[in-house]
Amino acid sequence: MVVFSGDFDRAMASFIIANGAAAMGSEVTMFFTFWGLNVLRKDENVETDKTFIERMFGRMMPRGAEKLGLSRMNMGGLGQKMIKGIMKKKNVSSLSELIEQAQDAGVRLVACSMSMDLMGIQKEELIDGVEEGGVASYLSSAEEGNVNLFI
Amino acid sequence: MVVFSGDFDRAMASFIIANGAAAMGSEVTMFFTFWGLNVLRKDENVETDKTFIERMFGRMMPRGAEKLGLSRMNMGGLGQKMIKGIMKKKNVSSLSELIEQAQDAGVRLVACSMSMDLMGIQKEELIDGVEEGGVASYLSSAEEGNVNLFI
Amino acid sequence: MVVFSGDFDRAMASFIIANGAAAMGSEVTMFFTFWGLNVLRKDENVETDKTFIERMFGRMMPRGAEKLGLSRMNMGGLGQKMIKGIMKKKNVSSLSELIEQAQDAGVRLVACSMSMDLMGIQKEELIDGVEEGGVASYLSSAEEGNVNLFI
Repeated sequence: MVVFSGDFDRAMASFIIANGAAAMGSEVTMFFTFWGLNVLRKDENVETDKTFIERMFGRMMPRGAEKLGLSRMNMGGLGQKMIKGIMKKKNVSSLSELIEQAQDAGVRLVACSMSMDLMGIQKEELIDGVEEGGVASYLSSAEEGNVNLFI
Repeated sequence: MVVFSGDFDRAMASFIIANGAAAMGSEVTMFFTFWGLNVLRKDENVETDKTFIERMFGRMMPRGAEKLGLSRMNMGGLGQKMIKGIMKKKNVSSLSELIEQAQDAGVRLVACSMSMDLMGIQKEELIDGVEEGGVASYLSSAEEGNVNLFI
Repeated sequence: MVVFSGDFDRAMASFIIANGAAAMGSEVTMFFTFWGLNVLRKDENVETDKTFIERMFGRMMPRGAEKLGLSRMNMGGLGQKMIKGIMKKKNVSSLSELIEQAQDAGVRLVACSMSMDLMGIQKEELIDGVEEGGVASYLSSAEEGNVNLFI
């Protein structure tokens, strides 16, 4: 599964599918590229050595699962707050909880090394337990899998 | 096939692929989640018992196939009108016609029960012939299929 | 692989995956529909016989790989310039170079004939070496492939 998008709703969908598949006994690998990297960022600022542009990029992008916006009807964060409120009332796991569940269930979370380089995101900025890997590593998992999605 | 998006153009693409595959003799299941549910809504208002927030959400989201916007160059609906005009002139089936064709060809349309719950969409609001199902139901179809897409 | 999107970042991702797969010895077919067609357009204006609406559409859509915008944080082209600057500094191939590499590696580039008709894009406007094909042609490649993505 490739997670390209950094939208809250798409990230939710990807983890719900991944956790469902893991619960059914499948091996699941999620490969995070481009905006998808933001899903895996820690929510605090991490001291790193970056160029000015990397620092700017880092500041403009959402820091972690709880900061992502909706792909539509975000309305400056209002739509996202509404969705989160409903999720809480209906006892749906939050995105951070889904990520934890995924890690507990043995879902492999792989951050695309090329995207990390491009966006100036360093390993210390990502949550624990995330591997780094290239396109070749994604493709070899994809070849073996029988369900492949680009989200 | 997972239809996550509620954009007119992506919905068109998903039904064109689904109908093509059905015509070639494949079994097709389309699983509608999040914004994709809007594709299956009836275009009239249906009397339902909802909370205030659910009612608001329902009113803000497009009601059915003919109300969806383009994912880009929508320009307040103008782009979408242009595309529809061209489609009519070129005798391309409208989205509602494509949905009907899909149902006639035996394509299974499944609405994600968790998304329906989250967005407060009830079964009576969806067009006839749509099943309800969970992630597990999607995954078991996906495991069997040899073409899986996330649109 | 279906390339539906005409965003710079998604187009990059699709060619990086395609070229990676080709390098690992797989046969790769990329099928370009809707906005994805813009990725294959030549960057100069081509003399064609079009209706007024087709001409307007053609003018409003980006002409070729170097004109595409980012799916988010495009900021009127600034975000895209920043990304390109970083790519150059890090010696990442540009999108046009990736397309050339794909063609050299034998990746088949197929333009969806129905989308070309709808958007009024003619074969002369696309870069050399692109085939035209319908949904059936896509589906028969997809059935054979073991990795299918919709980007």
